[in-house]
Amino acid sequence: MSYADNKGVKVYYESWGSGGVPIVFLHPWSTNGYIWYFQLYHFARNNTCVVVDHRGHGRSDKPASGYSIQEHASDVAAVMDAAKIDKAVIVGNSIGGMMAMQLCLARPERVLGLVIQSSGTALSEGIPKEVMEAMIRDRDATFNQLLEGAVSERTKRERPEILDLVKAYFMIESNWPRHVFDSAIKDPNGVFNWNIKNRLKDIKRPTLVIAGEEDNATPVAANKFLADSIPGAKLNVIKEVGHFYQLEQPAACNATLGEFLKSLAR
Amino acid sequence: MSYADNKGVKVYYESWGSGGVPIVFLHPWSTNGYIWYFQLYHFARNNTCVVVDHRGHGRSDKPASGYSIQEHASDVAAVMDAAKIDKAVIVGNSIGGMMAMQLCLARPERVLGLVIQSSGTALSEGIPKEVMEAMIRDRDATFNQLLEGAVSERTKRERPEILDLVKAYFMIESNWPRHVFDSAIKDPNGVFNWNIKNRLKDIKRPTLVIAGEEDNATPVAANKFLADSIPGAKLNVIKEVGHFYQLEQPAACNATLGEFLKSLAR
Repeated sequence: MSYADNKGVKVYYESWGSGGVPIVFLHPWSTNGYIWYFQLYHFARNNTCVVVDHRGHGRSDKPASGYSIQEHASDVAAVMDAAKIDKAVIVGNSIGGMMAMQLCLARPERVLGLVIQSSGTALSEGIPKEVMEAMIRDRDATFNQLLEGAVSERTKRERPEILDLVKAYFMIESNWPRHVFDSAIKDPNGVFNWNIKNRLKDIKRPTLVIAGEEDNATPVAANKFLADSIPGAKLNVIKEVGHFYQLEQPAACNATLGEFLKSLAR
Repeated sequence: MSYADNKGVKVYYESWGSGGVPIVFLHPWSTNGYIWYFQLYHFARNNTCVVVDHRGHGRSDKPASGYSIQEHASDVAAVMDAAKIDKAVIVGNSIGGMMAMQLCLARPERVLGLVIQSSGTALSEGIPKEVMEAMIRDRDATFNQLLEGAVSERTKRERPEILDLVKAYFMIESNWPRHVFDSAIKDPNGVFNWNIKNRLKDIKRPTLVIAGEEDNATPVAANKFLADSIPGAKLNVIKEVGHFYQLEQPAACNATLGEFLKSLAR
């Protein structure tokens, strides 16, 4: 319902509720802030909750370039400024988790704690060159396949609308235009190339890493690496979940986030 | 992402996708446009889809008064004007269904077809005076109880986040402030008092009425009355669903809506 302005790029965000520890929710690539539907109102009863549409996504500006994780993280800081939030717990899924970690490195004073859900760093190192090339050549087919492997079998069986939804997101040009994909994929600090392997040790905030056991997009190993490298970080591996814990098991996800918030207060 | 201006009241709406038959989604009382999450992107692949936050709700203005169904329906027309949509299929749940019917009576030239999901007219006639008084005296407890009876047993068991969500919506003051409830409940043409029993025969567009078998808020009988009174209307009674088909069984709901769209094209 508002826009933050980051050097001329308008970044859409919504702020709901008031009080408590502020929570900022950062969505995965190709989706938008709606993905936190089951978290936003649940937590807004007691907390200020902010959802962001990242640049290039949803209701935000979609410039020709500028899709490094560093730019995205500076957008998050700009949103927090606009929403008058000094410090917050940052909950980030996939590319949202990257932004959360990057924000914590660049602006640790803005971060109270991190929940990194199904994320990673230096993703391109784990992806065969042919697969990256196939993705650029035939985005839609490759992305469809990626998403098939990013949702658990149980989710596909019991909540078929979720795979349908995450596929729909990337097919709607007004939500995620082709040029955003092209620019991000080539960016030396974009979603695939951004590499903070040697800086994870410098993340010094309480951190919970959440991995979905059936997530082939950012597998358990990629998340375990984050948890092993971030000092004091904890790892939760969730059964029968893929890349989208917030949608695949919303009530359990909310309980997990609630526990993390409580642990910060102790 | 945009606002329509209806005589100074700003009504929030989002438009996604392009082409096809335009669809306008109208949410239930106390919620907001997010409730169509699983419909919006699904249909936006092939259709222009518009979701509205009704005045008094979500991201729209919340004037002190003006909550007749007629005002709400004129907001929908204003949104269609702003979104440059001449005619659309109107999908309305609960109070959203009332707006859809009212729009069809007042501006039939803007309506291609109606999907009326868990709705009714002259609701107050079916509610004992004590219950109405209790609702005004203790909104939160009464509304909580109402919602408990508006979600199916299966939904409560398998998707506990849904009851949690619809309860959260009304407890977040910035989403649905108390004065909106107070004004609407007293309005002679508000959500409870609006009465078009004698005008249902004048609705002359293809109409599908959807009722949830376990919906105690707008029971099957209230929806059957609509279907029986609107010329040619069809009634679908859905098992193991309450008031919120779009959330309780999103994939089945989308199939039902898809069938209706196809039937219009024939």
